[in-house]
Amino acid sequence: MREIAATWMRGGTSKCWVFRRDDLQVPDLSVDEVLLRIYGSPDHRQVDGVGGGTSTTSKAVILAPSETSGVDVEYTFAQVGIEEAKVDWGSNCGNCSAVVASFAIREGWVRPGASETAVRVLNTNTDQLIVQRVPTPGGVLDEEASEAIPGVPFLGAPVRMGFVDPAGRSTGHLFPTGHQRDTLSEAVGGVVVTLVDAGAPVVAAQAADFGVRGDEDIADLDAVPGLLARLDAVRREAGVLMGLAPTPEAVARAVPKLALVAAPDPASAERTDLTVRMLSMGRFHPAVPVTGSVALTLAADAPGTVVHDLVPEGRPAAGLQLGTPAGRVSTFAEEHDGVPVVGVVRTYRRLAHGSVVLPDPPLQPSASA
Amino acid sequence: MREIAATWMRGGTSKCWVFRRDDLQVPDLSVDEVLLRIYGSPDHRQVDGVGGGTSTTSKAVILAPSETSGVDVEYTFAQVGIEEAKVDWGSNCGNCSAVVASFAIREGWVRPGASETAVRVLNTNTDQLIVQRVPTPGGVLDEEASEAIPGVPFLGAPVRMGFVDPAGRSTGHLFPTGHQRDTLSEAVGGVVVTLVDAGAPVVAAQAADFGVRGDEDIADLDAVPGLLARLDAVRREAGVLMGLAPTPEAVARAVPKLALVAAPDPASAERTDLTVRMLSMGRFHPAVPVTGSVALTLAADAPGTVVHDLVPEGRPAAGLQLGTPAGRVSTFAEEHDGVPVVGVVRTYRRLAHGSVVLPDPPLQPSASA
Repeated sequence: MREIAATWMRGGTSKCWVFRRDDLQVPDLSVDEVLLRIYGSPDHRQVDGVGGGTSTTSKAVILAPSETSGVDVEYTFAQVGIEEAKVDWGSNCGNCSAVVASFAIREGWVRPGASETAVRVLNTNTDQLIVQRVPTPGGVLDEEASEAIPGVPFLGAPVRMGFVDPAGRSTGHLFPTGHQRDTLSEAVGGVVVTLVDAGAPVVAAQAADFGVRGDEDIADLDAVPGLLARLDAVRREAGVLMGLAPTPEAVARAVPKLALVAAPDPASAERTDLTVRMLSMGRFHPAVPVTGSVALTLAADAPGTVVHDLVPEGRPAAGLQLGTPAGRVSTFAEEHDGVPVVGVVRTYRRLAHGSVVLPDPPLQPSASA
Repeated sequence: MREIAATWMRGGTSKCWVFRRDDLQVPDLSVDEVLLRIYGSPDHRQVDGVGGGTSTTSKAVILAPSETSGVDVEYTFAQVGIEEAKVDWGSNCGNCSAVVASFAIREGWVRPGASETAVRVLNTNTDQLIVQRVPTPGGVLDEEASEAIPGVPFLGAPVRMGFVDPAGRSTGHLFPTGHQRDTLSEAVGGVVVTLVDAGAPVVAAQAADFGVRGDEDIADLDAVPGLLARLDAVRREAGVLMGLAPTPEAVARAVPKLALVAAPDPASAERTDLTVRMLSMGRFHPAVPVTGSVALTLAADAPGTVVHDLVPEGRPAAGLQLGTPAGRVSTFAEEHDGVPVVGVVRTYRRLAHGSVVLPDPPLQPSASA
């Protein structure tokens, strides 16, 4: 039996276990093997591990202080498979990103400033710099639960996360096909979509093209016969067009993400610019992936995209108000020294910490359950 | 922020956080308030806490060494509400019980024997003594993952759990109504059921009376229109007949449990005596609650019960082979010094340990999510 130091944190609407990179080095085992066994995968319930049996609760954040100039912390995200014995390293999780600044300050990797501390976090999955600001009044990290975000019914400690120059991190271009909109093949319905790469590669497709309004509860959308399969076919064809994989079959589960978008509801209590239901790991997300909200913010600003056509004219340009299943999520868009920075405010909380246990023997034949 | 020492363990097919009783004493807060906040309740996802958003992953085991003669450990079980801000103390969880012996030996509360150690555990919810046997070769607890149980796709460390003299712990009688079978009111279909109290109060109802076979996948049973509501009405009327509550509305969610029983499938690869799908906390259980399997074992041995009529004549009497959604679960029935002992072998595993975190402030208005 081996104990591996770990902290369980909520970041935004996700729960993730946070590890120091060196602590996941176990003799004779790959990091993938270690994570899968700790999380209890493969198993749809993950009953023999620390995974939660859903995509938003089977995530790992792996951190190390950085030697690179202009970077404080190197952050690698792992989506740990649930039914599948596979770890996906191909994308970042913007929600989990929200835990990094706090962890780094607690570890002593970053010295807190007098009132606020900016932690420069490099996500290694996407080569994306994320500058995170947390309150540190009097030079002490303030983790008081004081802020609300949609999808989390308790207050949490705030972190303001800016994705620095996010366009094209995965493909080299904000619009990887060179077009603001693309028409997909008749095999997937000939729909018109926008393919955008910022934060994460995202396919923006119009809800109306799939016979839904786009503001439904996600359980209702899950229940529409064939919808998830049709959207996944769209996503896979789009992934090939974006250059992410050579064939639809080879497109990863995690990216591109797919956003089903619609015009905002004018009767909504909270003013929004765009209604969105986003697919993540094959399921509708309960709120919105942060990385996807960055992509939609830049797509909304670009005339010719399907997103731009849906958002109201004359809205304030510095960000986007997204109508999500959990409520309104607001992004911001700024410029610092001529570099665009797009992001959101999230909250986080430490849930538990200590160590996770790798059993003896760590690798074993699955039981015949 | 306050840290509370805790260990996360799998016990059988459940996951539970294990606490020392004294550690849950927090100034100005009730234990219920502490547990609800730590687990992130109320919230269907428990995203801001250590609960897993399902009944089998929102459980707490609270332990203390015992001063009582013949008892080593006092064990209290708490079912922590998910959507409801309520902790249910009215029943035991047999699966979670499986973690107690290991925890007590690790804490030094029980001195290990030379080859095997028997730990005498008193469940305070049901006043039930459970004798647990774990291997301790050479006086050292052996937690090697070596045994399989249905519903858990990984091997675990074995614990043999015997419920000592389990009849009537909640109501005073094995058959609380004085009958081996009772006919319920026409309002709930006039069905004939057996009401039995052993391990936990259980209603045994025949699947055929509800238009199902009883060997369906639980997802298929969940999808039968009105079935869950009809079974809950049966459960509530039965709870009143068993003296557990004055009215159907006042019957707890946790007890009585309801077992939908059917004759064994003669074509099954593994010989079974009884097919069972059991309701626990309003949902079909992925395997079987251990406490419910104890009740069914004693009911099967009593002529006149609906269970006895379904099990094959001439089966070996010392236990019951249950066909559950996850596979076959075997109970044993023995006598020690004239006292009946009924139980099962389960496996357990330590998943994580350290502490859970109570935020600052611990009590707060729910955010408007």
